[in-house]
Amino acid sequence: MAHYGAGVEYALHTLLNLSLAPDETAPSARDLATFQRLPLAFMRKLLTQLEKAGLVEGSEGLRGGWKLAREPRKITALEIAEAAQGPSPLFECREIRARCALWEEGAAPRAATSGVCEIHAVMLAAEAAMRRELAKSTLADIAQRVKAKSARPDSTAIPDWFAGRYAERRKS
Amino acid sequence: MAHYGAGVEYALHTLLNLSLAPDETAPSARDLATFQRLPLAFMRKLLTQLEKAGLVEGSEGLRGGWKLAREPRKITALEIAEAAQGPSPLFECREIRARCALWEEGAAPRAATSGVCEIHAVMLAAEAAMRRELAKSTLADIAQRVKAKSARPDSTAIPDWFAGRYAERRKS
Repeated sequence: MAHYGAGVEYALHTLLNLSLAPDETAPSARDLATFQRLPLAFMRKLLTQLEKAGLVEGSEGLRGGWKLAREPRKITALEIAEAAQGPSPLFECREIRARCALWEEGAAPRAATSGVCEIHAVMLAAEAAMRRELAKSTLADIAQRVKAKSARPDSTAIPDWFAGRYAERRKS
Repeated sequence: MAHYGAGVEYALHTLLNLSLAPDETAPSARDLATFQRLPLAFMRKLLTQLEKAGLVEGSEGLRGGWKLAREPRKITALEIAEAAQGPSPLFECREIRARCALWEEGAAPRAATSGVCEIHAVMLAAEAAMRRELAKSTLADIAQRVKAKSARPDSTAIPDWFAGRYAERRKS
């Protein structure tokens, strides 16, 4: 099973869509859910998580809508992943060094279990490298790369779609 | 849930124990299982996986026993983790960009889904950073750090334990 699940994937896409949607269109939870063909309840829950993490702000209702709480260049992929899924350690050390046959169960001498297990330390270094890399990518970088693929229809189609939803809302 | 599970943790500890056990002691699967208080069947399965990955070699039986297939400085933490758990991607891209409301389901234009999704690309970079870090640590590095903690009883206790098991086997 992958470390980062569907919640992280949808969180990243939702914030990318918010960063591509023109500011004045203030997409509703329904707009964002409809765009990704997701159940509205799932999107509402996701937006609540992202709001708690300080990444989006907004409200529901006729004059409501959602927007990024910070500039896209100040939101990292790491923050988004952790907002959607929590800190997600790469490795959970079960301290099995303390349970070996050298001593009675539960009676490992303190010196044998002091400090971080050397195997756990290797995994913590790998996790730190992963997190550093995710912290380097901002939402602005990702949006920039989507826009740079000028041949791709969604580089303008996404903003246009949200503008269309906004126009419809204003009519009704 | 942690990305790397108990199988990876026991694989790392088992190979560390093999690297600390004196060569001539050639621990049996039973020795290795007993040392870690694990079911023998679990250890046998783990050794088979590690053998398939070319990390250990050995045989069961009175004159059998297990040893590393290569020098500890030529076995990396990445190889051990992948031997125990397979390649384990950090993120499984569901290509949700192809399922948005811009087009009919299953009818995304080719240009919109060509190349790696920009969000997947960020996750692949994080996975590469994690793997690079795990590939930097060898079994020799880990064993060295265990031995360096001279105050720790297991720096000599582990080799002694396996030597004791070997002596007992020879007697019987």
